[in-house]
Amino acid sequence: MCDNTFMRMAITLATNNVTSGNGGPFGAVITREGVVIGEGTNQVTSFGDPTAHAEILAIRAACKNIGSHILDGCIIYTSCEPCPMCLSAIYWARIKFIYFGNRKSDAAAIGFDDAHIYQQIALPEGQRSIPTNQMLSEEAIISFQKWTQSEFKIEY
Amino acid sequence: MCDNTFMRMAITLATNNVTSGNGGPFGAVITREGVVIGEGTNQVTSFGDPTAHAEILAIRAACKNIGSHILDGCIIYTSCEPCPMCLSAIYWARIKFIYFGNRKSDAAAIGFDDAHIYQQIALPEGQRSIPTNQMLSEEAIISFQKWTQSEFKIEY
Repeated sequence: MCDNTFMRMAITLATNNVTSGNGGPFGAVITREGVVIGEGTNQVTSFGDPTAHAEILAIRAACKNIGSHILDGCIIYTSCEPCPMCLSAIYWARIKFIYFGNRKSDAAAIGFDDAHIYQQIALPEGQRSIPTNQMLSEEAIISFQKWTQSEFKIEY
Repeated sequence: MCDNTFMRMAITLATNNVTSGNGGPFGAVITREGVVIGEGTNQVTSFGDPTAHAEILAIRAACKNIGSHILDGCIIYTSCEPCPMCLSAIYWARIKFIYFGNRKSDAAAIGFDDAHIYQQIALPEGQRSIPTNQMLSEEAIISFQKWTQSEFKIEY
């Protein structure tokens, strides 16, 4: 199957998600070597979970499917440009290529605007709209020292 | 209970996560009106899920607990500064305040470096290390038109 086929699958997931009333118009498909290994749709309101974006659910499904938290060599087809949460997840998952259908500006035009979040995470913590303070650093660092010394750790 | 108590809970979650071998040294606690409503630890390797960071799991637990995808008025205590995925999730969840223990630079020193991702998401798509291309935009936009016309949509 060609790239168009996978993107059309993502778009169909997005469209069906609207008509079913399950969530926003977003769908994503992940492939490995030309085979679909995971898909997801926006389920924020149906799951009551703000992290249940199409790409996050597709990543979780693909990882469960192949039994690994690493999706290197995989491609994601998402019906809309990823928000910064999903884009970061794509980096953590080590996906190699992103195809998208709609632009962020198209999403903003129908009420899904992540421009504010993109702007916020680029700012130093002191300038963000959510106040962010460090505390108990001397106690917190002990957990990191435990990690360094641990014989059980699985690095990733 | 005071802020110190909640941060100590997050740090204890992080430390216990290392000694149990469940995952990286990260824990998070979410409170509403001084009551813990959700907690999480890093479960990336134990769940095989790259999105299973402490803050993401704490947000999901808190939302499930209160039956809403919105955590406005809530505070998150995380044992380490959030990565961009978790910070974005905190924005989507509308959490009002972030307390953290360890700094990103402390995490980088023990092998958990998200500086690359922070840098990447601030770049235009054409300059990122993961190639990102638009395709089938004329078909993708139809899902957004369906959303605009839908009588079933729950806006958020």
